[in-house]
Amino acid sequence: MAIKITGTGSFIPSIIEKNEDFYNHQFLNADGSTINSPNEVIVEKFKAITGIQERRYIKDELLNSDIAFFAAEKAIEDAKIDKESLDYIIVAHNYGDVRHDHEQSDTVPSIASRVKHLLKIKNPKCVGYDLLFGCPGWIEGVIHAKAFIASGVAKRCLVIGSETLSRVVDKHDRDSMIYSDGAGAVIVEESDEEGGILAHESATFALDEAHFIYFGKTNNPEITDQRRYIKMYGRKIYEFALSNVPKALQSCLEKSGKSIDDVKKILIHQANEKMDEAIVTRFYKLHKMKMPEGIMPMTINTLGNSSVATVPTLLDMILKSKLDNQEIKKGDIIVLASVGAGMNINAIVYQY
Amino acid sequence: MAIKITGTGSFIPSIIEKNEDFYNHQFLNADGSTINSPNEVIVEKFKAITGIQERRYIKDELLNSDIAFFAAEKAIEDAKIDKESLDYIIVAHNYGDVRHDHEQSDTVPSIASRVKHLLKIKNPKCVGYDLLFGCPGWIEGVIHAKAFIASGVAKRCLVIGSETLSRVVDKHDRDSMIYSDGAGAVIVEESDEEGGILAHESATFALDEAHFIYFGKTNNPEITDQRRYIKMYGRKIYEFALSNVPKALQSCLEKSGKSIDDVKKILIHQANEKMDEAIVTRFYKLHKMKMPEGIMPMTINTLGNSSVATVPTLLDMILKSKLDNQEIKKGDIIVLASVGAGMNINAIVYQY
Repeated sequence: MAIKITGTGSFIPSIIEKNEDFYNHQFLNADGSTINSPNEVIVEKFKAITGIQERRYIKDELLNSDIAFFAAEKAIEDAKIDKESLDYIIVAHNYGDVRHDHEQSDTVPSIASRVKHLLKIKNPKCVGYDLLFGCPGWIEGVIHAKAFIASGVAKRCLVIGSETLSRVVDKHDRDSMIYSDGAGAVIVEESDEEGGILAHESATFALDEAHFIYFGKTNNPEITDQRRYIKMYGRKIYEFALSNVPKALQSCLEKSGKSIDDVKKILIHQANEKMDEAIVTRFYKLHKMKMPEGIMPMTINTLGNSSVATVPTLLDMILKSKLDNQEIKKGDIIVLASVGAGMNINAIVYQY
Repeated sequence: MAIKITGTGSFIPSIIEKNEDFYNHQFLNADGSTINSPNEVIVEKFKAITGIQERRYIKDELLNSDIAFFAAEKAIEDAKIDKESLDYIIVAHNYGDVRHDHEQSDTVPSIASRVKHLLKIKNPKCVGYDLLFGCPGWIEGVIHAKAFIASGVAKRCLVIGSETLSRVVDKHDRDSMIYSDGAGAVIVEESDEEGGILAHESATFALDEAHFIYFGKTNNPEITDQRRYIKMYGRKIYEFALSNVPKALQSCLEKSGKSIDDVKKILIHQANEKMDEAIVTRFYKLHKMKMPEGIMPMTINTLGNSSVATVPTLLDMILKSKLDNQEIKKGDIIVLASVGAGMNINAIVYQY
């Protein structure tokens, strides 16, 4: 028995926030001090490192659960399944529903329950829950689906990654330019075909790394309220990811029984272009190889970092021929990989 | 192979909030109108229905992740295991870490990562994630652990239910008297012994029921901020639970292959004494039986409703002989059951 992805869907928010839109922001250092560069220079440096030119934000009237639903609808349609036949709805996110005009996260009921409600699924045996695992949450959700199917608890699961980081950014922090909104979804199910999920790898590094990505105050010392925003220690994350993600990819590949020459695509969490390139370059270096051209499709330039949504969105775009010069053919071996808050790392080796 | 609970732990917060402590609250109806009864009468009626005399709150300086850690430490000690041997840390909660002086939920990093950090576990293969599934989250976490172990992904899991509802209550809402804080944890692992988890049942009712428990504004119309609080449609929940929980219990019992006469204890989510009694009474009525005396141990009178924490805390108290006239002996069949936001229902038939 194989466990396969039989349908994909994604939702790309309509508001395009360009780098130039940040020119009038007041960026400050974490200690509140002034940054001695004009914003044009800050933005240019930012783009050189992250690769991000623009990112997407949802409209004020939308919530995270709405866009999770939009992506889910498309995945169900794509898989040509009866929605009532779903055994699980697994939603990976990190901040729940945050309204545009207020800072509180709303997580009760779960986003999965809200999506199930919006999908109008009647079957109570379709169980919905939310999974919090940092940016690697969506891949972890696919791993959950694999475990449920392998253990006989489920046959068919909807796994969604959905996030609205625009609702938790500090406008006075340069890192706010990284974050984006988006949602991606897949149907994972039992299949008589060959391939599917060949191996997975998951890890949580929490001894020293737990608070590398955290909720912190604004960089603006003149704002004295208690509101918190997504914050990160970029340098530490970069070094951590570079030390640990290539090893996790290698471990997952070994478990799958496949060779590095078999790998056709690496779909890595769109965190930061330079970091992603460094990770994949090092992965190939472990095999004394150069990173093959086109192995690592990227969407970060125009879609930014939408946390849990980047990998399923990327997968959906390739399969739907929406990404230039990128395709996945039947039989292709691909690797899905992510790293993020927790600090968590995971990977899946998958045969299409 | 059996999947067994090999250790339990719980944390009962030190602050006792008595019913009398609510005498000076200004309770209002949901529409903001005055309740035409003195508080002494409101509180007395409340006690007659819910059975709650007092509840527990954590100290200002504590967070949900702290008390999750306290319970986890005890469960690890009780199971006499090496903490580094854990494959998963699964934390069920609903609101993350909410500080005493601010309304925002903090869920990044996950509560599981925070607990792993506090436990000082080094092993990165010990994967920590959070599970949001309303009050039935802890039982659902045990079901996840079962699936992971059955599918060969894990051998040993720490499953925690931890909640600090005192941080999300509306003081102008009578229902605020229901909610409590607490944490319970268990070690679930592969075992050569007989028994363990014999069957489980999970369900999500979201078509009409998704928003029976929700995040809403204060009942006080003079407070005009956007802050939201835990809110519920008590009557709807009561009717829903009474219609659906006995059937879920019955379905789970049938799957387990055991008879109702085998059941020694039903550990049900401590939501509301009258509702819990009505559910279990109806379950026995399905078998044309009367509810046996002492079958349903209760802690709600002194501990209130601490959401995901009630069932693991109750289990821990019985096993540690902290509940008068209640015990679970080797070989005993027990049922764990819960109902809550989502609306979710679940149950486990377990042999000790």
